[in-house]
Amino acid sequence: METDVVIVGFGGAGGCAAIEAADAGSEVILFELASASGGSTAMSSAEIYMGGGGGTRVQRACGFEDSTEDMFTYMMMAAGPQADEEKIRGYCDNSLGHFEWLCELGVSFKDSFHETRAIMCLTDDGLLYTGSEKAWPFKEHAKPAARGHNLYIEGDNGGPLFMKIVTENVDKRDAIRVEYEVRALTLITGEDNEVLGLVVRKDQQELNVRARKGVILCAGGFVMNEEMLQKYAPKLSVGTQAIGNPGDTGTGIQMGMSVGGAAINMHEGFISLPYYPPASITSGILVNDKGQRLINEDVYHARLGNAILNDPSERFYFIVTVDQYGDYEQMNFMGADVVGTGETVAELEEELQLPEGTLQHTIAFYNQAAAKGEDPLYHKAEQWLEQLEAPLVALDVTPGRGAFWPFFTLGGLDTLPSGEVLTADRTVIPGLYAAGRTACGVVRRAEGYSSGMSVGDATYSGRMAGKAVAARNSVSQ
Amino acid sequence: METDVVIVGFGGAGGCAAIEAADAGSEVILFELASASGGSTAMSSAEIYMGGGGGTRVQRACGFEDSTEDMFTYMMMAAGPQADEEKIRGYCDNSLGHFEWLCELGVSFKDSFHETRAIMCLTDDGLLYTGSEKAWPFKEHAKPAARGHNLYIEGDNGGPLFMKIVTENVDKRDAIRVEYEVRALTLITGEDNEVLGLVVRKDQQELNVRARKGVILCAGGFVMNEEMLQKYAPKLSVGTQAIGNPGDTGTGIQMGMSVGGAAINMHEGFISLPYYPPASITSGILVNDKGQRLINEDVYHARLGNAILNDPSERFYFIVTVDQYGDYEQMNFMGADVVGTGETVAELEEELQLPEGTLQHTIAFYNQAAAKGEDPLYHKAEQWLEQLEAPLVALDVTPGRGAFWPFFTLGGLDTLPSGEVLTADRTVIPGLYAAGRTACGVVRRAEGYSSGMSVGDATYSGRMAGKAVAARNSVSQ
Repeated sequence: METDVVIVGFGGAGGCAAIEAADAGSEVILFELASASGGSTAMSSAEIYMGGGGGTRVQRACGFEDSTEDMFTYMMMAAGPQADEEKIRGYCDNSLGHFEWLCELGVSFKDSFHETRAIMCLTDDGLLYTGSEKAWPFKEHAKPAARGHNLYIEGDNGGPLFMKIVTENVDKRDAIRVEYEVRALTLITGEDNEVLGLVVRKDQQELNVRARKGVILCAGGFVMNEEMLQKYAPKLSVGTQAIGNPGDTGTGIQMGMSVGGAAINMHEGFISLPYYPPASITSGILVNDKGQRLINEDVYHARLGNAILNDPSERFYFIVTVDQYGDYEQMNFMGADVVGTGETVAELEEELQLPEGTLQHTIAFYNQAAAKGEDPLYHKAEQWLEQLEAPLVALDVTPGRGAFWPFFTLGGLDTLPSGEVLTADRTVIPGLYAAGRTACGVVRRAEGYSSGMSVGDATYSGRMAGKAVAARNSVSQ
Repeated sequence: METDVVIVGFGGAGGCAAIEAADAGSEVILFELASASGGSTAMSSAEIYMGGGGGTRVQRACGFEDSTEDMFTYMMMAAGPQADEEKIRGYCDNSLGHFEWLCELGVSFKDSFHETRAIMCLTDDGLLYTGSEKAWPFKEHAKPAARGHNLYIEGDNGGPLFMKIVTENVDKRDAIRVEYEVRALTLITGEDNEVLGLVVRKDQQELNVRARKGVILCAGGFVMNEEMLQKYAPKLSVGTQAIGNPGDTGTGIQMGMSVGGAAINMHEGFISLPYYPPASITSGILVNDKGQRLINEDVYHARLGNAILNDPSERFYFIVTVDQYGDYEQMNFMGADVVGTGETVAELEEELQLPEGTLQHTIAFYNQAAAKGEDPLYHKAEQWLEQLEAPLVALDVTPGRGAFWPFFTLGGLDTLPSGEVLTADRTVIPGLYAAGRTACGVVRRAEGYSSGMSVGDATYSGRMAGKAVAARNSVSQ
């Protein structure tokens, strides 16, 4: 087989890469291990993190005049010391364009705002807050705006709908040939380590596929590879639920490494304690086994989860009032058990075997401050500050004790914003590109994750790689 | 040039590798970029972490009947989720043998115990505690024993003496040829990615060097490579002093990666706040800007430093009494400034701008518990529990505000205990070995570091690689 562009993996990244490469005049073969398109994007809620430039159509309709600088500042803080400034700059500068491009594909977003704090939007509203934008310290540095765009469909059905639209767009382009149930095995390289193609296995046969312009690896992350997780990202081992499709075994990353590509940020992942809904839990407090709080409880759920993982304590509890507990049993995702109830704080403290006086002090201090509408320790927003009046309920959110901790990987091949794969000394490997979770993109850690960043990054980085490879004149041509 | 074994880098790992390879009958060429041997080992204190098996001669003389299981348990806890059990097992099982081997080289250790808590031994005593063995939680799981072996010399002169002895041993072996001022450039590979040799630059000329048995990369870590630090280990960027020799630029790791070697644990390093001596600081408390303690203050200095780095607070202080402050000005390493003094706790709290009541509560609680000889929150050992009576002194230990934070890298090529370099799917790259900080060894994180683990690992892993390569029959022979 021979073509211009070979793409490995038909999820969000691979699909968008194929469309862009074909629209730029290239002939494409898209290999997918499974018998259908979708990848992990189809399994997600497919929220897409977009904004800046005065706001997307949806943002403006909902009253958000978002600026590119605020979005950039927020995303840089979110990625922290690992931030790739050039990538984040490109992502933000081109975010309105990405919104338009998706709309042109046929992706619809309703011009309505979802007010309730949620980990995903179960209505068909088009926009919601999906991160820590309104929480300290982010709000001190970047004007908050909702940037999570949710597809125009009820329920948690955004992912399948999104990939249906992408697949229809792929199918209607004659320049793209899709080969399902094909396993990518090895890259073929020539002089100067240029990537010339790929060995694949199809119908029990190994075939060499020549890629005249290049190969794009869009084969997902490595959350389904136990050995790689243990070796690279052992902190994710406390997670209870790997989020991804069965093909997320790191083979794309490994193929890149085998020709000298550098994998970076491999220790990081999204890992989270999805403690809302009900949103009222946010008004409770998270404490460790010293009865101390750890963080402002109004942050994104993965940021709070990360604070737990970074604290060496052996037990963690959410302490809520009966009112705040509310309809927890009916609607919670986190599955944490009630392990204590107290008619008084002292009673709960004893029941949780916290050192005497610790929880009593924490709650007395918190209540005194909350009465003034302040949180001098952690700066939780006033909206979530309520005095905690007994009776109180304690939920055990200690990792490993029943609560749900979903996770996936955020490390991958080091790439330029164009998707070109880099070696450890940042030399480009000619003809090799990566996108989506096979690459290390704009989103780098749980501490700053916001829903929609991974699908946003996958689709955007796929497009950039598709364009770049289509524009390439290979050395060996 | 042609030889059996090519070694890149003449520090502790490379020197020990050369000796073992030569003693097993191989001809060796040892290339060193600098004009003399030494590497980072010569710049260190060269404490060596050894024990188990009933104790080394020095341990037994000092009254420690150390067991291999206690040493193994301690080292496994120290490495945490990143632990390489097979490597740690080998290191502990062979630790007494390593002690004997070093003694036979001519390394001397005095049979005396250094009682005082110190970050290095400035006397000629042969043994001291160099980790968190006596601190919670380690002491609950492994019987404490001092395992830091210090060379028989006054002052911080162990490193130069150690490398002098290793170099004399290298020089007296005719089978080893040392080439100084030579830069290793690229590995040469053949069929099946077998490593056949190395291209080096010597006297402005590039030379191909054939290695009949294999190449051992012992070129140190990457602490001197700003770009690699930023890319792989951004958390080390708060460090103020890179610890290493100018050649620690990651070239050994990069050479390994260029032939498909997997670099692992790249985000981790030793990074520390060396807050003792004076040992009396240990009896103070470390608090954040919520006036909360973070950790038992009797742990190893890098474990305490790591607790600071993992806490998202913006300020950190050591609070000590005037007595505990003692001769801090004369003998401290950490260089933290006094930023507050208080005739009362309330006064100090105000001076540090801590929320009202926070430090007062923390100290009242601490003093009450200390009076009973207990630390119910963090389990600091009774020996270090003293009531904190005003007047008090606050030292600012916030990263970036003047204190000394030394650091070096702990990520490197993934290897078997034999030193054989592995790809991402754990296939051995034939003919390629790595040791010392070019490999990822038994010591994996600041949180569990103990002085002597890195030189211990470098010398031991160098020896293992030297033996393994000498025993190899290359595919192409």
